[in-house]
Amino acid sequence: MSDRTIEFFFDIGSPYSYLASTQVAPLSERTGAPVRWRPFLLGGVFKASGNTMPASVQPKARWMLGDLQRWARHYDVPFKMSSRFPLNTLMTQRALVASGRIGGESAVDPFACALYEAYWVQDRNVADPTVIAEIAGAVGLDPDAVLAGAAEQESKDRLRADTDEAVKRGAFGAPTFFVGDTMFWGNARLMLIEAMLSS
Amino acid sequence: MSDRTIEFFFDIGSPYSYLASTQVAPLSERTGAPVRWRPFLLGGVFKASGNTMPASVQPKARWMLGDLQRWARHYDVPFKMSSRFPLNTLMTQRALVASGRIGGESAVDPFACALYEAYWVQDRNVADPTVIAEIAGAVGLDPDAVLAGAAEQESKDRLRADTDEAVKRGAFGAPTFFVGDTMFWGNARLMLIEAMLSS
Repeated sequence: MSDRTIEFFFDIGSPYSYLASTQVAPLSERTGAPVRWRPFLLGGVFKASGNTMPASVQPKARWMLGDLQRWARHYDVPFKMSSRFPLNTLMTQRALVASGRIGGESAVDPFACALYEAYWVQDRNVADPTVIAEIAGAVGLDPDAVLAGAAEQESKDRLRADTDEAVKRGAFGAPTFFVGDTMFWGNARLMLIEAMLSS
Repeated sequence: MSDRTIEFFFDIGSPYSYLASTQVAPLSERTGAPVRWRPFLLGGVFKASGNTMPASVQPKARWMLGDLQRWARHYDVPFKMSSRFPLNTLMTQRALVASGRIGGESAVDPFACALYEAYWVQDRNVADPTVIAEIAGAVGLDPDAVLAGAAEQESKDRLRADTDEAVKRGAFGAPTFFVGDTMFWGNARLMLIEAMLSS
């Protein structure tokens, strides 16, 4: 792993992680820094760090609806608030881990992007195994292998270990980025990552 | 008040409000939108909105130290984490209200900037009446009038009313900006304000 690698810890259930997911490829292109897509479980991060989801504060939840729309306009990407938020993404995140075990780390990025679009643009239920399998198939993965892999102990352990690793390194929310030991929280800090990588 | 006016609700005790304070003048210049500096009491906002200060989550507090430094570098402004954080800024915010009553709204901006520099660059105790008076004098205000004004019921009531107004309009933290009915939270959203004002 290059010491300029951008590690991108994400959960499909996090709308700000969706926004970030639309920007990491152009960021990588501009900076020449590679990106590692690292699924983790945001619920586990909240629990371990003593944090709560932003939307648990009512006026913040109200503001977020407009804020997300404004970021989407700013990035010129589609966004539709999910009618099933928050969602238990345990199965979804395990399927992402399984995709990496099956297709290698490079398989995670397109699968994650397709899941993000399904959840944050098409308002689909990405916790539903049928939907997960369909999306896996659409990006060229073997749907049955992904579902079977998600149910394997190794995927469960790996998701837990990666979540624990992020927490140990300082994570308390999503998206969380690391460049070496430096941690960045939130899509709003992408410009600070770019500044660091360009200096 | 123009419908392009940027209302800037701030508390001297908030480091992200300090960062924002260094950027509003250039933002105003680029967009042609006037800025109203509106002191409020962040502690009152937290209480009324059910929010807690970001630093109350331990890993977030640790991350903030580096995040604030990175924003300061990005903005090319000085920043030194205060050794007295968090600070009870009730007196400071009342003094800011008093400065507006004495010198008109345009007196608030330079007084606030001087208080910000004292707290977030020089690590001074800006809750101390002696320090408040000295800084008031340095920006051309009558120090005794500011201290006396801060103690008047009208200043107390005005600070409470302005804090209540911000909460009623949706505020839950600082800095909080409004352009008309649209609320923006945090220095990280200054670019979204600029996008809105430039569209």
